[in-house]
Amino acid sequence: MTELPSKENAFFEWYNEVLEQAFVIDKRYPVKGLNVWTPFGFQALAAMDRILRDAVAPLGYEEVNFPALIPETEFQKEKDHIKGFDRQVYWVTHGGATPLDVRLVLRPTSETAMYPIFALWVRSHTDLPLRVFQIVNTFRYETKTTRPMFRVREIHFFEGHTVQRDEQSAAQQVEKDLGSFRVIAEALGLSYLVHRRPEWDKFPGAHYSLALDIPLGEGRTLQIGTVHHYRDNFSRPYGISYEDAGGERRFAHQTTYGISERLLGAVIGIHGDSKGLVWPPSVAPVQVVIVPVPGKGPAGNLTPYAEEIEGRLRKAGLRVRTDDGPDRPGAKYYLWELKGAPLRLEVGPRESSGRTVTLVDRLGHRSQASADTLEAAVTGALERFRVELSSRARAAFLGQIEFVAAASGLATAKNVRLFGWCGAEKCGHAVDEAVGGSLLGTVEGPPPPVPGLPTDPPSCVICGATPSRWATASRPL
Amino acid sequence: MTELPSKENAFFEWYNEVLEQAFVIDKRYPVKGLNVWTPFGFQALAAMDRILRDAVAPLGYEEVNFPALIPETEFQKEKDHIKGFDRQVYWVTHGGATPLDVRLVLRPTSETAMYPIFALWVRSHTDLPLRVFQIVNTFRYETKTTRPMFRVREIHFFEGHTVQRDEQSAAQQVEKDLGSFRVIAEALGLSYLVHRRPEWDKFPGAHYSLALDIPLGEGRTLQIGTVHHYRDNFSRPYGISYEDAGGERRFAHQTTYGISERLLGAVIGIHGDSKGLVWPPSVAPVQVVIVPVPGKGPAGNLTPYAEEIEGRLRKAGLRVRTDDGPDRPGAKYYLWELKGAPLRLEVGPRESSGRTVTLVDRLGHRSQASADTLEAAVTGALERFRVELSSRARAAFLGQIEFVAAASGLATAKNVRLFGWCGAEKCGHAVDEAVGGSLLGTVEGPPPPVPGLPTDPPSCVICGATPSRWATASRPL
Repeated sequence: MTELPSKENAFFEWYNEVLEQAFVIDKRYPVKGLNVWTPFGFQALAAMDRILRDAVAPLGYEEVNFPALIPETEFQKEKDHIKGFDRQVYWVTHGGATPLDVRLVLRPTSETAMYPIFALWVRSHTDLPLRVFQIVNTFRYETKTTRPMFRVREIHFFEGHTVQRDEQSAAQQVEKDLGSFRVIAEALGLSYLVHRRPEWDKFPGAHYSLALDIPLGEGRTLQIGTVHHYRDNFSRPYGISYEDAGGERRFAHQTTYGISERLLGAVIGIHGDSKGLVWPPSVAPVQVVIVPVPGKGPAGNLTPYAEEIEGRLRKAGLRVRTDDGPDRPGAKYYLWELKGAPLRLEVGPRESSGRTVTLVDRLGHRSQASADTLEAAVTGALERFRVELSSRARAAFLGQIEFVAAASGLATAKNVRLFGWCGAEKCGHAVDEAVGGSLLGTVEGPPPPVPGLPTDPPSCVICGATPSRWATASRPL
Repeated sequence: MTELPSKENAFFEWYNEVLEQAFVIDKRYPVKGLNVWTPFGFQALAAMDRILRDAVAPLGYEEVNFPALIPETEFQKEKDHIKGFDRQVYWVTHGGATPLDVRLVLRPTSETAMYPIFALWVRSHTDLPLRVFQIVNTFRYETKTTRPMFRVREIHFFEGHTVQRDEQSAAQQVEKDLGSFRVIAEALGLSYLVHRRPEWDKFPGAHYSLALDIPLGEGRTLQIGTVHHYRDNFSRPYGISYEDAGGERRFAHQTTYGISERLLGAVIGIHGDSKGLVWPPSVAPVQVVIVPVPGKGPAGNLTPYAEEIEGRLRKAGLRVRTDDGPDRPGAKYYLWELKGAPLRLEVGPRESSGRTVTLVDRLGHRSQASADTLEAAVTGALERFRVELSSRARAAFLGQIEFVAAASGLATAKNVRLFGWCGAEKCGHAVDEAVGGSLLGTVEGPPPPVPGLPTDPPSCVICGATPSRWATASRPL
């Protein structure tokens, strides 16, 4: 293994190299944009899925599974939607040597697979709200540069879909979904921005689109999730209607909530450092690694002691592994720092004879604990580590957002630009051009507390009009 | 809801109807052979996946995820394999309007996706055995009649793949896989046959194929899983070789282990009855349903009591639901019998004031328990239910296998035929013809103890040659 490139100066080189060296993803699959999840990487992905499931269960979402293949006839029912996707979908045209009567689309997202069935499931107002999600592979024929987890052609995707009585209850669902995302981000130690995308950048078919964006350095951002309000834009073409309490037939309103494997890419990109991965405990494939450190004398009861510790921590529900391979301890420290284990337990003859353990977390904090209080010491150290990791990420997040008071600053700023915008499309495109990137939209809620920020949004950074709203712009990923 | 068709006289009508009425699968998706897993059905599927994961973990299998799209160039490397699948695969030919340079196959199974990567992962004998699995959607362009779970075009599929040093260690892996399947079948209360498929019916590319078959009535069987030994048939074309301890380069031997959603279909088909589904507790979406039974007087503390019970059972790790809807108790009993809940708790004023519960399992056994011993009473009742369900299935299994001593009996037998076979292909095809179905292969291990069975295999049912081996034949599903 060679030294990692500098994350600060060459983010994507660092990112590719750390994924390869830590063996999270194998990029050597012989089709561009399709990657292999290794056993190590898959454990993190599966842990992320559990976090997502746990976060949406209290909202009443139930898990389902719809087919990956969508007939062209259904796919084309909502016109804006198909326009947004028709250059991005994979077409299945043949079964064996036989041309299919109706061509099939590999789902890029599942509105058009689900909604013909929702039309059958929803009859009465008592069937509403309908709230389902699935975690599946979706497909997009990406023509841009692909990058593991950030932009791929087969995407590991959480998609929540709800059917609601009216526009207001759908809007409330959107807020609830955002609330569940706060829980998810907390578990992952991530800070993020919520944007209302400009009209011209909404999801195809949406009434409005809220996006969750994370700064990734050098003024770039990564969209890690979205929540859309569809109003009745899909329910009309797909015939999703219900009988209300008064016996009248009404079209339903709908929302969706999407989170992709990009979220795990963000975890890696945000927390990793010059030594390698840094997993938050919630998704770490190995939360605690035990490294036996033989002294110069006989090993004595070192192995049984390490086994006792491993057994107790496993019983406490932790993902723990003892590295009892032939390498010297220093090489193991190096490896498990690269692989991002949050906590290392060093167990040598001194620890064994004194029934103690030495704890070293991935940020370098070292402590001692008695074996009597092992479980509490380990869970306490993991929790302190999680909090510190979150704080560090929060500080880095704020350091990547820059208030821009005048149009001239849009081009020269090095970070994500935060400014006033009047809402006019013309001014929005002027921002795009000045930044050499994109207006991300208006900021939902209070703006991030970055230095020099006035209390109220200033006038529009382009035309000077008031009132304006807080908006941001960033460079393309 | 209407009465179910007779399972005995019209199995598939019963099967389709119970899936629809209990809302396990929605068959109304607008493409033949593609179905929707409802929230209820998906819970059973997810529970089955957990059973599979738990069964293979002790064997050292690790979970991975490979792409669903396989380039035509890789797909064609093993010639028998492609010949076995080329009329059954879906072809992806276009990305948007652009024809792809290399056409892509939607995986029918993942040998050809995984093995180019295994060739990179395996270098030395110390990398072996490599044991990975994935649970994914696979695709087959079925031209025969499709049936939910039994024969579909998108298949929920567990596939284990191992790479071994030599033929013998691969054969040992096959035995270990069979051992893990015994654990799985035990959890599901299923009895099954293990067959060595005849040469002409092996998996395309396999050295030998063992199949797990379940009798489904009227002399039919369902293949619910397979374990294959590939010898070096794939490692040679895909270049999977390793350096042995002596420094010599050798081609690896390989095995695979496949279990599809058919397994869940078998659970439904085997255990269900005239009232509907009967889930073994291990996969039941709802293991315990609590039905409050209001008396004629005031409800009193009925609701808090039911809530206490639900809370305690949930805390004990059970999947429990209280049906507090407006229907009368009898209608709820009917519904949850249809939906197959293993155990119903009836809670009325008498139970509430006496702090007892009435337990009724899905086979009709009724008992009482004190609230003090609620958890033990419920888990005990579920365990007794599981054992009885398994015994009932075992008896039905044995009743569906029939010893056939003479060729004339092959055609007239009503059940799965068990007989002697010399191993000759000519005799095998004569069996196929006589049965109007298929020779399933030779029985692995001792034959099932059905009435009238001689101790040793009799001479070949067709040609009379000895020695012969126990073999079976059944009608196509």
